[in-house]
Amino acid sequence: MTLSLQDCRARDAQDPLRPLRDRFNLPPGVIYLDGNSLGALPAATAARVAQVVTDEWGKDLIKAWNTAGWISLPERLGDQFAPWIGAGPGQVVFTDTTSINLYKVLTAAARVAQADQPGRKKLISERSNFPTDLYIAQSVCAQHGLELVLLEPEEIDAALTPDVAICLLTHVNYRTGAMHDMAAITARAHAQGIVCVWDLCHSAGAVPVDLLGADADYAVGCSYKYLNGGPGAPAFVWVHPRLTDRFWQPLSGWFGHAAPFEFTPDYRPAAGIQRYLCGTQPIVSMSALQCGLDIFTASEALGGMAALRAKSLALTDLFIELVEARCGGHGIGLATPREHAQRGSQVCLTRDEGLGVDGKNSGAYAIVQALIARGVIGDFRKGDGGTGRHKDILRFGFTPLYVGFEDVWNAVEHLRAVLDGGEWREPQFNQIQAVT
Amino acid sequence: MTLSLQDCRARDAQDPLRPLRDRFNLPPGVIYLDGNSLGALPAATAARVAQVVTDEWGKDLIKAWNTAGWISLPERLGDQFAPWIGAGPGQVVFTDTTSINLYKVLTAAARVAQADQPGRKKLISERSNFPTDLYIAQSVCAQHGLELVLLEPEEIDAALTPDVAICLLTHVNYRTGAMHDMAAITARAHAQGIVCVWDLCHSAGAVPVDLLGADADYAVGCSYKYLNGGPGAPAFVWVHPRLTDRFWQPLSGWFGHAAPFEFTPDYRPAAGIQRYLCGTQPIVSMSALQCGLDIFTASEALGGMAALRAKSLALTDLFIELVEARCGGHGIGLATPREHAQRGSQVCLTRDEGLGVDGKNSGAYAIVQALIARGVIGDFRKGDGGTGRHKDILRFGFTPLYVGFEDVWNAVEHLRAVLDGGEWREPQFNQIQAVT
Repeated sequence: MTLSLQDCRARDAQDPLRPLRDRFNLPPGVIYLDGNSLGALPAATAARVAQVVTDEWGKDLIKAWNTAGWISLPERLGDQFAPWIGAGPGQVVFTDTTSINLYKVLTAAARVAQADQPGRKKLISERSNFPTDLYIAQSVCAQHGLELVLLEPEEIDAALTPDVAICLLTHVNYRTGAMHDMAAITARAHAQGIVCVWDLCHSAGAVPVDLLGADADYAVGCSYKYLNGGPGAPAFVWVHPRLTDRFWQPLSGWFGHAAPFEFTPDYRPAAGIQRYLCGTQPIVSMSALQCGLDIFTASEALGGMAALRAKSLALTDLFIELVEARCGGHGIGLATPREHAQRGSQVCLTRDEGLGVDGKNSGAYAIVQALIARGVIGDFRKGDGGTGRHKDILRFGFTPLYVGFEDVWNAVEHLRAVLDGGEWREPQFNQIQAVT
Repeated sequence: MTLSLQDCRARDAQDPLRPLRDRFNLPPGVIYLDGNSLGALPAATAARVAQVVTDEWGKDLIKAWNTAGWISLPERLGDQFAPWIGAGPGQVVFTDTTSINLYKVLTAAARVAQADQPGRKKLISERSNFPTDLYIAQSVCAQHGLELVLLEPEEIDAALTPDVAICLLTHVNYRTGAMHDMAAITARAHAQGIVCVWDLCHSAGAVPVDLLGADADYAVGCSYKYLNGGPGAPAFVWVHPRLTDRFWQPLSGWFGHAAPFEFTPDYRPAAGIQRYLCGTQPIVSMSALQCGLDIFTASEALGGMAALRAKSLALTDLFIELVEARCGGHGIGLATPREHAQRGSQVCLTRDEGLGVDGKNSGAYAIVQALIARGVIGDFRKGDGGTGRHKDILRFGFTPLYVGFEDVWNAVEHLRAVLDGGEWREPQFNQIQAVT
């Protein structure tokens, strides 16, 4: 089957989620395939933020903590979002950052593991996990006398042994877009008495997640990628109800207190997920986040996560198919699994080593820069220089809320033009600078 | 000397800082004396926030981390503010919350103390310190085998003994407005080998602070009070350069890494204060904060902190003098020191126990509510019910950036009317509800 631009347009016309694109302000001339790094701006956000600043803060001042409901925003947003990760009401709060929330839950997990399974000394994770997860794990291990063991994905199953205290995994890998089977791994880990912590940064709002169904123990995730909460918008944390009240987490600030406004000198943790709160939250950023979540709520009438997942897979399938059909002869490979069950909402391409301008690199960075200059925004992740298993990556995120099938066609056409025309060889694309 | 409204107006007319009031949007009909809880809205903030949302995020999307300089905002704002707390460039970052930053520095302080002075087991603080400080200290003590010892302010000097590892104090007390002599306490503590951690929440931007001059070790503080950064705006952290690189703090997220975008699996802390960063910051809230800091920068041409302090003391002196002259016979007392050297930028009043409507309380809560209904915004802090040393408190903050002398006159007139007229006896003011 040879796909055409017209086919892609027809798919957009039939897309039940198409109306959601109008809920975003996308800059003209841009095909945005980096929503897995920073989500696009919801159309409602600017007005909401103006309201918070000018009316709530400006007019109600200190009273706005009550009149505007700032005080309960972490819990209210958590309840609104909970169904999208298979969590129940009262189980999720938005607060702080992913790194900080991970520190909270890893410490709680270490305390649970040391109480229930004393003597276990290993915390296992994936070597290609997002680095901040490994840095935080390093710190928690040092504080609790645990050993951090890093594995390749195919080694995980065999490593779920009774000497392991905690298994920390990111559900969808940030580099490759490969997705773990959360339920299967959690079941195998639990059978060995291992506590499971899941990072949902690249899956929340992007793929179906069922934390209670998978019987997970702890989860964290960010809101500035697929949830479109804005740069650095507060992250979320979930704890299985059987574990929430067993220990307090170490960031025992006043917002996690059972009665913060009694101002008593002794810490008495709140019951439930509220004890995972710590200090005063950035209300302007958190209010902006609500506009992102509201789009998910609106999507329920259009099919919700089932429809989002179906479209996401259709978009990534299409991208893979078109790249392979139209961009041959340039050493482009696929780093993302073809199997739907193992794929998140992104596609990562590789380029054979030695094809860069100097014959030493892959040229992937320069290709990404040339695409950005054409308005196709993806990003680049460095490999390990041809010495190991990780190649340089051209990374493209497909957010089904606002990316369409014609966008995919056009993105591939730009990629083809960059490759065929040797555009990436231009000097301005070949100077590697700081990449965010 | 009998002061009059005309005298107050004359003082406003002569006030060199008066132009700064125009840099705030204050709601009409409100006398805002709660800037020590949530600062007022700078006039520039709404436009700045709109720019960040609509232009930087909306148009530049992921590129804005570089094009709009989001990536360096914690350090840039830290450098801008550093002189106001007597810190040098590269020594301050804005990030996370006060509670979280306190956890970072207390853990670092515990590591330093245990390395340099092993065997010391006490962390001392003030019993009436802001509770979140004590809750975080409790957690750090539990993790490091330290004992948390809580003292009354007059007991601190005698408690600076060689068995103490860390002294944690808030410079200006949140309840009473009493200010410690930072340089003197730090010198006495250092003579005993004690590490000093200072919380500047009620002093940053409110009173002169000279961290390097006092030779302090660690400091934290918030930006949503006197700095007018907005609700929950990111807090700051400072570490003396002799200590910054000695240990990493436990919240070892990627933004504190020496090379975060190399995505290496091992944590390698950045040199300097950057290692006190952790995760991705709430950029919208942090950008709003800059408008608050810019007013301090603008105040430099009008006399800077010396002028701010002189006006703050003039305002609080005037408030005390007018309350004592015009509100007699209602059991009102003063909880804030009269001595300038011991006073922050707030005045706290007490009311004799037994003067409430039921004869069991002081009525202070009802008085504060009646004042709020008249547009005079202060707040209430509960005492210990007449059983101990802490009375109920009527708390009034005086921010010299936007509070004027006529405001003080009018606030006292409202207080007099509420007291003389028995307005606080109205049922709606006597129902104690959640107070923020």
